[in-house]
Amino acid sequence: MVSCNQKTETKVDKTVTTIENAIKPDPLPSWNDGDNKKAIIEFVEAVTNKDGGDFIPAIDRIATFDNDGTLWSEKPVYSQLLFAFDRIKTLAPEHPEWKTKQPFKAVLENDEKALMASGEKGLLEIIAVTHAGMSTTDFETIVTNWIATAKQPDPRFKDRLFTEMIFQPMLELMEYLRANDFEVFIVSGGGIEFMRPWTEKTYGVPTQNVVGSSIKVSYEYNDGKPVLMRLPAVAFIDDKDTKPAGINSHIGKKPILAFGNSTGDQEMLEWSQSAGIKTFQGLVHHTDAAREWAYGPDSKIGTFSDALMTKANSSGWNVIDMKTDWKVIFPHELK
Amino acid sequence: MVSCNQKTETKVDKTVTTIENAIKPDPLPSWNDGDNKKAIIEFVEAVTNKDGGDFIPAIDRIATFDNDGTLWSEKPVYSQLLFAFDRIKTLAPEHPEWKTKQPFKAVLENDEKALMASGEKGLLEIIAVTHAGMSTTDFETIVTNWIATAKQPDPRFKDRLFTEMIFQPMLELMEYLRANDFEVFIVSGGGIEFMRPWTEKTYGVPTQNVVGSSIKVSYEYNDGKPVLMRLPAVAFIDDKDTKPAGINSHIGKKPILAFGNSTGDQEMLEWSQSAGIKTFQGLVHHTDAAREWAYGPDSKIGTFSDALMTKANSSGWNVIDMKTDWKVIFPHELK
Repeated sequence: MVSCNQKTETKVDKTVTTIENAIKPDPLPSWNDGDNKKAIIEFVEAVTNKDGGDFIPAIDRIATFDNDGTLWSEKPVYSQLLFAFDRIKTLAPEHPEWKTKQPFKAVLENDEKALMASGEKGLLEIIAVTHAGMSTTDFETIVTNWIATAKQPDPRFKDRLFTEMIFQPMLELMEYLRANDFEVFIVSGGGIEFMRPWTEKTYGVPTQNVVGSSIKVSYEYNDGKPVLMRLPAVAFIDDKDTKPAGINSHIGKKPILAFGNSTGDQEMLEWSQSAGIKTFQGLVHHTDAAREWAYGPDSKIGTFSDALMTKANSSGWNVIDMKTDWKVIFPHELK
Repeated sequence: MVSCNQKTETKVDKTVTTIENAIKPDPLPSWNDGDNKKAIIEFVEAVTNKDGGDFIPAIDRIATFDNDGTLWSEKPVYSQLLFAFDRIKTLAPEHPEWKTKQPFKAVLENDEKALMASGEKGLLEIIAVTHAGMSTTDFETIVTNWIATAKQPDPRFKDRLFTEMIFQPMLELMEYLRANDFEVFIVSGGGIEFMRPWTEKTYGVPTQNVVGSSIKVSYEYNDGKPVLMRLPAVAFIDDKDTKPAGINSHIGKKPILAFGNSTGDQEMLEWSQSAGIKTFQGLVHHTDAAREWAYGPDSKIGTFSDALMTKANSSGWNVIDMKTDWKVIFPHELK
């Protein structure tokens, strides 16, 4: 948006403009000065400079962000999995048979070993009873209520809501991009309808800009009123080599900026970089055990493999070192 | 966008403002004055009036438009089908076996009867060879080249490109909505990747706002460069009772304005109306045999059944009579 003040500015003496530029507010105050912060700002200034060779029209300024581990913490375990376990416990009184039936017994008894033993089949059974069998509207209400009260289980953060465990530097980056007419999307392996109830309030990303994994739905009438019923059948998994397909389906063009944090994001970043114009790829590297978590190639959740690091280095991707690049990690540190 | 002039206006004498309002440009100049035009303007003014009881924030001002028959002509036959037939003819020299093999023989010989006899199986075979087996980038190029040259077959319009057979009143409506901070989407039964190469230029609807039917894709490397290869397998059909699912998947909230023209759009309009806030539903009724085409319940393409008309009347949907509501149909009439 061109404001009157900005218009006036263009007419004033060049010296004043130079001074104003020198003291203009830092768009990324929670980022330490360094190569990564500099690279982000240089990229944004290049693609928005109408007179430069790298200018990209606003309609094509697509930015995609992974969610788990990129915009919020994914440790000790994905919050969507904790949501599913909480739902099992909430629904258990209606299902006395779960007391003796796996994988439900394992969830009710917090028996991690038995749960792991139930494998993918067990996980799908859990998803079927916790994520399907209700309308999209009812599921939205269930998620909204859960996310408003569920707390991060790590003792260091146990009074924190999951939506407080978001990364302040990434909030600033998304806002900076939007201020420069980027359209910011989330492209996550997480459930699209698990994210949508809170992404707008939490990240400023509206439902129409959320891409994720999904289950099938069926159009039905409930007392004459149309509803979409959630079915226990996977429609789309948005991870690894299917993230470009998710981007293609929802957005239809390649992101010029893509941010992830794990091997599940490699193909999204490759896809972005193949656009043939100036692009930016970033990976959040969890290196701060004191302020958040430190993990890499050996972590089952958010694996940052050695191969990914090699690929990032050879491809010119920006690896963000949380410990050194981020002045602040969570918004509550600012309070 | 608030311009400096508008800001100044708010300070001037009320009488001047009243006069200015009286002479402000008509947002829908190709629409005849009447109940439908009045209803559209009243709706837009109601949901954008911050002080009114029907105000809806910009982020939730979602408008969805069917394409075939709603934004452009769908007669004598869907242009995507003509695209497929043209592709068969273009590819025929590489496939000598098609000379004797149905449904290809029928297409090459313009044998409509034999083509119909090949049924859905035949149609899927045609789609498989014309829409799959290439990368998304190559398909985009093929569509872009075709749409730039292919002509409407009706003798009355034979020199017209399909992208000239669009409805001027609907262009004005979409522009009016965008000027009022609506986000305008296309939600069509047509192929999403058949539409995207030209919707931005033709309608001002960018690729990220196009919802349609799709086939599956596979992420592969071609000389080390990532590509999405189009597979001969349907991923999603976006028609009738699956249009709400398409809207849910891509947008994640109900449209407050929905426009269609046939029985394939009924569920989309129902879905919109079920939002529980002020909404608007419109149906384009093709009534003008002289300027476009006139068809209704008996037409196989764009069927407007008696049941749909009954539903529209009982639900308060606005049925647009092309003959009486539209001053101009095609943009070229203005030249």
